[in-house]
Order: sequence, then structure tokens, then C-alpha cells
Amino acid sequence: MSSKLTPRQTDYSKWYNEIVINAGLADYSAVRGCMIIKPYGYAIWEKMRDILDKKFKETGHQNAYFPLFIPKSFLSKEASHVEGFAKECAVVTHYRLKLSDDKKSVVVDPEAKLEEELIVRPTSETIIWNTYKSWISSYRDLPLLINQWANVVRWEMRTRLFLRTCEFLWQEGHTAHATKEDALKETLTMLDVYTDFAENYMAMPVIKGTKTESERFAGADDTYCIEALMQDGKALQSGTSHMLGQNFAKAFDVKFTTKEGNLEYVYATSWGVSTRLMGALIMSHSDDNGLVLPPLLAPIQVVIVPIFKSEEDLKKISEKISIIKTELENKNISVKFDTDDTKTPGWKFAEYELKGIPVRIAIGPRDLQNNTVEVVRRDTKEKSILPISELTVKIPELLKDMQKNIYQKALKFREENTTKVETYEEFKKILDSKGGFILAHYDGTKETEERIKEETKATVRCIPLNNEKEEGKCMVTGKPSRQRVMFARAY
Amino acid sequence: MSSKLTPRQTDYSKWYNEIVINAGLADYSAVRGCMIIKPYGYAIWEKMRDILDKKFKETGHQNAYFPLFIPKSFLSKEASHVEGFAKECAVVTHYRLKLSDDKKSVVVDPEAKLEEELIVRPTSETIIWNTYKSWISSYRDLPLLINQWANVVRWEMRTRLFLRTCEFLWQEGHTAHATKEDALKETLTMLDVYTDFAENYMAMPVIKGTKTESERFAGADDTYCIEALMQDGKALQSGTSHMLGQNFAKAFDVKFTTKEGNLEYVYATSWGVSTRLMGALIMSHSDDNGLVLPPLLAPIQVVIVPIFKSEEDLKKISEKISIIKTELENKNISVKFDTDDTKTPGWKFAEYELKGIPVRIAIGPRDLQNNTVEVVRRDTKEKSILPISELTVKIPELLKDMQKNIYQKALKFREENTTKVETYEEFKKILDSKGGFILAHYDGTKETEERIKEETKATVRCIPLNNEKEEGKCMVTGKPSRQRVMFARAY
Repeated sequence: MSSKLTPRQTDYSKWYNEIVINAGLADYSAVRGCMIIKPYGYAIWEKMRDILDKKFKETGHQNAYFPLFIPKSFLSKEASHVEGFAKECAVVTHYRLKLSDDKKSVVVDPEAKLEEELIVRPTSETIIWNTYKSWISSYRDLPLLINQWANVVRWEMRTRLFLRTCEFLWQEGHTAHATKEDALKETLTMLDVYTDFAENYMAMPVIKGTKTESERFAGADDTYCIEALMQDGKALQSGTSHMLGQNFAKAFDVKFTTKEGNLEYVYATSWGVSTRLMGALIMSHSDDNGLVLPPLLAPIQVVIVPIFKSEEDLKKISEKISIIKTELENKNISVKFDTDDTKTPGWKFAEYELKGIPVRIAIGPRDLQNNTVEVVRRDTKEKSILPISELTVKIPELLKDMQKNIYQKALKFREENTTKVETYEEFKKILDSKGGFILAHYDGTKETEERIKEETKATVRCIPLNNEKEEGKCMVTGKPSRQRVMFARAY
Repeated sequence: MSSKLTPRQTDYSKWYNEIVINAGLADYSAVRGCMIIKPYGYAIWEKMRDILDKKFKETGHQNAYFPLFIPKSFLSKEASHVEGFAKECAVVTHYRLKLSDDKKSVVVDPEAKLEEELIVRPTSETIIWNTYKSWISSYRDLPLLINQWANVVRWEMRTRLFLRTCEFLWQEGHTAHATKEDALKETLTMLDVYTDFAENYMAMPVIKGTKTESERFAGADDTYCIEALMQDGKALQSGTSHMLGQNFAKAFDVKFTTKEGNLEYVYATSWGVSTRLMGALIMSHSDDNGLVLPPLLAPIQVVIVPIFKSEEDLKKISEKISIIKTELENKNISVKFDTDDTKTPGWKFAEYELKGIPVRIAIGPRDLQNNTVEVVRRDTKEKSILPISELTVKIPELLKDMQKNIYQKALKFREENTTKVETYEEFKKILDSKGGFILAHYDGTKETEERIKEETKATVRCIPLNNEKEEGKCMVTGKPSRQRVMFARAY
């Protein structure tokens, strides 16, 4: 595992894949486009899930579970949903296998054909709104605030580990409200929850904004998103929160009696983040030596490597360390004491660097004499010698400092790679030289957006929420514009 | 919701369905045989999952995630797996939809036919062992102890909420070991974890045992199980742990180099429990007034219902209660203070009884004067008046006592409904009168087992692990038998 990674400068994409594979985050599977999330990668995802789940519950949501399958006809009920939504779906047509004639294999039983095909959910608005019809009848049933952790399938043609896979894990919130204002408030609340999570846990700065019409979720009145910048200058959409208006309520006939006794359609939102966040996390912070994890998402925060020649040395070290380990664990810090004697300390150092363990402590017989240890932080690789007696105070401080530092570094990178441009020429030049986020005026039409995309592969990532109003001219058509929007090439 | 349930005596099956629906545990869906797990039901399942997950991790397992889909050919690789395993599976044959000619609906795109069909996993041995082939090469890679929380699909013809659904949630552990002894030890360790969980958290006594050959998991050398007795005298298999020997290793060619340098096939186990446990939980303890939950699995353990006529009364009660609520929550007890003024106290009492909230506290203006509250425990419906000052001591004690009492009651029921019989006549008579577990001699042959099943619908639930050896004669054929086995009609 300690073989060197391809440097980012040489081949960013190769570097990314090597980190994912070599650090034991994920693996390819025998099924085209489907990945295996390996234990170490899954442990990080579990941390993400648990933190988000807590935040969802704190904001009043409950979890539930809806079926994996959606009757084909449901997808046709919301007109813009069916037109706009990708039709790359896994379709179940049969429900039985049978032994082949030679009894050596199985074949699909042609007798067991479904009357109506079932679609493996690409997202669950339709099956959920079909259910909400029977759950909602009065204003007393509202708001209905439900989230689901689930797997979904979209038959992507070009897949990449974590970033774009046919099957992925995600959460999808689906809420129902009495008024448009309530629904909009929910949409923005969840955007804030995602922003808080991205910035304060993933240490990844994001820009909040709305999508243009052409990038909007099929069936939404408005799509809000958070956009992050990766180290190669490409953007990654990291979460979306959709204001669905009354579209799904009308498609599935979900009405409620108001306090005043009127019958009205309810308002809806949906919002989600997925295992794609794992890709964002990896690409935001990692370096040519491997993964860099913000301490709050690291399954192991501190690894202690003993340096010993004899069993006796190890015994002495272990005695000292077991006390420190317990003290740190009592402060909710996860610690691994690696006593494996089949690997050298050097091998372990490289391995834990690759895996992004935030703090590495090494301790040998001489350290024991001096009552000190060597501490190395993963983000800056800075080494220091610390008295053992200070560890229980210094390590928590160090972890906090790293969390902040990793965020600041990413923020600085984003600021250095956000450029205002005035002309289309400049736009193209920046895109091809440094990339990053580009703030530019455009006339707000689908046609211009499409042309820019075709000519440069850049898209409008979002119209930032905190946008200054600034009169200008479209860099392509010269038509008037009232604000800059944020462009980038994106994952 | 406070409408009366059908009594168990009148129609047990109807009673069960009504509890599931009326207590808000689950709902039917638009997809045949697939259920919706509603928020309250899901909250109970989350508690189960979190407790089990902790136990899996404490016994050295890590979570991972493998693909939902299995290439059809994989199912044919392990001969007894394909022959024995149910072939009722959801089969994906296409990967794209397209707009219909009238653009009003979607149809399956005939051009997008998969070369090899994909099966929605009914269980994951095949896809996982195909992966382990590349993860295992040396004794250093062993044991490999992995668990997965996932949804699986088995196309059941007759479904029942929680007990038998086409899609269900479960966990499946899949481990690899260097020796047969290690694998057997793992199989038994996980059986013990399940037993501990069933008895000490679900308050449901279980019998540990092994399955007969005909009830064994397809591909296993031995299947261990835990069997519980429901209130209608039917058995429910509540968890299985399979010793898979080298069968899957051979089918997928998974070998490892031993310490001595030899190349050998690894040994495997797999083990699982599912949302079926929800059905077991409901049927073990609930009564004609609704759900009875063991406190350790109750999402809300204490509900406090204020009885008030004026806003002022409520304010006074709230002040008192908020202190108690905090104190109880500090002791990790979950408390709901229900101040909803659109429902009467009587309605709330019935509702919380239906939902199985372990402890109900009622407090009115007079209680306030006396500094007391009325406490009702859900299991025995016993009422008591307690001084407010004692609640933080008495409530935790009460919850502990209820946990124990619910278990004892179920154990007593099982003991009273376990019968030793000597003749086939007696066997049939007991089955049709009281049901329950029946301990009887049989000759151990498939033929006799099959005959008993056909004639009585009873099956060998298991050969109990702690079985006394006792010479006897098969109740059907008169052939010699060395031990009694446990029969029952089962879910």
C-alpha cells in the first residue's frame, strides 16, 4: 500500500483514483458502474451520515423508508419530471428465475413477466407523493417533514468512484407544507444545514446559490445548491434543496383542508446529498501523499506507533500509552495503538499518511526516557516533540487547529481561484489556464448558456444567493445583465 | 386513531395488521408486496440497528457496502446455492426508458437491453465472495469480518407487513477465516450476539439451535438459528447464522497462503437479521390495547400529558415539568411533553397506549398542589401516584422493572406453551389445541420431516443447542431417535 501516488500535477484524475483505491475507500465491482464502499470509506460515510442525521432530527425531521421500486406509470404523472429527468434507469421486467434445462445455470422465467415494469428508484418524489396523498388531509397533518436514507440507481454511462456511480447511497428529504412561504423556508433551512455540514465538518467552503432554469431539478420551481471548488479548478455540486411548489401535489392530487375549511394543494420540497460528498472530501484537501481528513470526519483521529526492538521495550511503551489512550478516548478522541510487529514503523508512517489519519504519534525507548513523544500533524506534516504529560491537553487543541486550518487552506484556494472577467475571451483564457470559479455577466437566456457550455464546457454553477446587484453586459451577446453569475467546469 | 383494535382472540392476524397500521409503524405501498416503514416504526428499527451495529463493532466487525445488483451468472456458481435458493427474484433486463410517441408517458427502450440480466440481491454471498477473491491472498488478510446494512428483494407471493415483504431491510455479515474452527467460532459468536439482543433488548426469549438439512440455508454446511414463540402459538425464526464451510470459497476460487506457505481455501460464515424482527417484537408483547414496547427499544420512553383548562394552568404545569423532563433526559430517558391542545387527555391516553409508550405521566392542577403525578406503566396498566420529587429515581427503576417484567411474561408464556409429546396423535392434538413449541422424537429423515409438514403444517424449528441426549422412538415411524427436536407451526 505504501507505493507512491501519481502526483496531482501529473494526472489529477489518476491521483484521485489511486487515493480511493490505495487508501481502501472503495473498489470496483463486477457490476458495470457500481462500486463497493470498503470499510474505511464506509466508516467516513457513517460519520457524515450520523452528523447529518442528527441535524435533520434537530430541525424536526423524522426518518422513514419507502419502496425501492417505482411503478413505471408513476414517472409520467408529473409532466416536467418525466421530460426533464434522465431516463437512464434500471428496469425490472421479470420476477422469477428458473433452472436451465441442463440444471447448471439459471435463466429468466419468461412466464414471470410483470404486467407493469418497475423502475429502481432514481429519486423518490413520485412514490412518496403517491403515499402522501393518503397521509395528508388536514392542515393538522402539516408540515410533514420526512427524510429517507437509501440507495438509488441512475444508469450513468461514464462512471467514477464516488463521483458518479450507477448505484449510490444518499438521503432524500421530502416535505409537505401548508404555504409557499413555509416550503421556501424549509428549502433554505436545509440549504443552511448542508452549508453548515460542508463548511464546519467537511472543512469545505461552499457557495450557496440557485440554479438556472436549464440546470434545475425536473419538477422544481427552484433549485438551490451548494457548490465547492476542487483542487483541479473544477466545481462540484455538493448538495441540492428543491422548492417544488405545488407541482407534485397537483400531479398526485394531494390536497388539504385549511384552518378556514378550504381545500388547497400542499407545497413541497425535496433535498439531498449523496456519497458523492466522499469525492468532494477527497478532492478538497488531499495531497500527493494521500488523503487529508478533517479531524471531525476521521474514523481514527490519532494513531500511535511504537518503535521497539524487544518485547520488553514494547511492554514499557504499552504501559505508558494505554493511560494516554484512555485519557484521549475519554475526551471522545478515537485512538489506534498499532502494535503490529509484522510491519516497520516506516511502512506504518506511509500507510497512515495515505489514509489521512490526522495525528501520528511515535514513541521509542529514548522518548520513554525523556517522557516525550514525536507528534506529526497530517495537514502540514509539521513535527513536534511533546511531553507525554501535555498530550491530553495538546492533542484536542491540535485537532481543533487542524480542522480550522484545513478549512482556511481550502478557502484561500477558492479565493485565489475565483476570477471576475468582463469579456468572453478573458473567460475562455481563465478557464483554460487556471480554471476555478468565474464570475461573469450573461444575458440570462437558455441559448447563451447553451452556447457557452458547448464552446467551453463551462456551465452556470449557480446564481449566488448573496450576489451584489451590478449592472453589466453579457460577455457573449452584449445584452444587459443585472448581476454576475458563477461559471465553472464541473464534475 | 383511538378506535378499538380487533381482539387477539377474535382474529390474531387482523389484530396484528391493525396494530401495525394504527400505531403508525408501517403502511402498504403502491408496489405489490413492498411496504412503507413509517416514522414511528422506523424509529424503533433505528434503535434495533444502532444496538446491533454497536455489538457487531465490539466483536471486531466493520461495515461496508456492496452493489444492489448481482450478475445472473453469479447465482449459478455455487451449485447448492442456486438449486436451493428461492428463484423468486426481481430481474433487471433494461437500463433505459424513453418518451412514448405521444410524449405523455414513458416506455421501456427496447434498444437498451442488458447483455446479461442483473438480479436485485436476495442476499449477497455471491457478489461478496466474488470480491473477496481480490481482497484475500494471505493469512494476514484473515479473518475478514464485514457486515452490511442493506435492502434486499425476494419476490414473495404472500406478503405480510414486516413479516414477509418483497423488499426488506436487513444486515448481512460475511466473514472469511483461515480455519474451520475459527469460522465455527464466528458462527456461534454471532448467534450469541443475536440471542443477547433478542433477550436483553427485545425482551424476547429465544431457543438457539441448528436447522435440519431441509431447512438449511442453500450453500451452508450448517445453519444456526434463534426461534421465538409468538402469542398465537406460532414460531418465528428471528435470526440465522450460517457456517458456510469452504463452499463459497471453492465456487469463487478464494484461496490464501497459510503461515506455512500452503495454498488453501478459506472458510466462510454469513449471518443476518431483518425488519422481520419488528414483527416478532410486535407479536411477542402487544395486547388488545395496542403495542407494548420493551423500554430499551421505545423511541419515546415517557410521555407526560398535562391536564389543564386554562393557559395559566398549562404554564404552571410546564414550569414544573420542564425541570423533570431535563432531569430524566440527563439520565438518557427520552421524554415527550405533549401540550397539544387540539386533543383531549383521554384521546392522548388511548393513543399512547396504542403506540406502546412504556410510561405515561398525567399531571393536573390538583397534582400540582399535592406535588404529585399519576404514573401508568404500559405493560401491566398499573397506576400509581408518585411525589414529583421522586420521579428521577423512580422512573429509571420503573423502566428497568418493565424491561424485566416484559421478558419474564414472554418467558412464562413460552414455558407454558412448550410441550413434550410421545405420540403423533398427541402431537397433532397439541398443535391444533394450544400450538406452541413441541418437543418430540423423530427419526431425522427428510421423508418423515416432509410427511409431518404435509400432514400438520408443522416443521422442525431447530435442534436445540443445549439438547439433552435422550433415547426415544420417532413418533411417526417408530425408528430410534437420540434426541427430541423442536417442532412448531411457523411464520
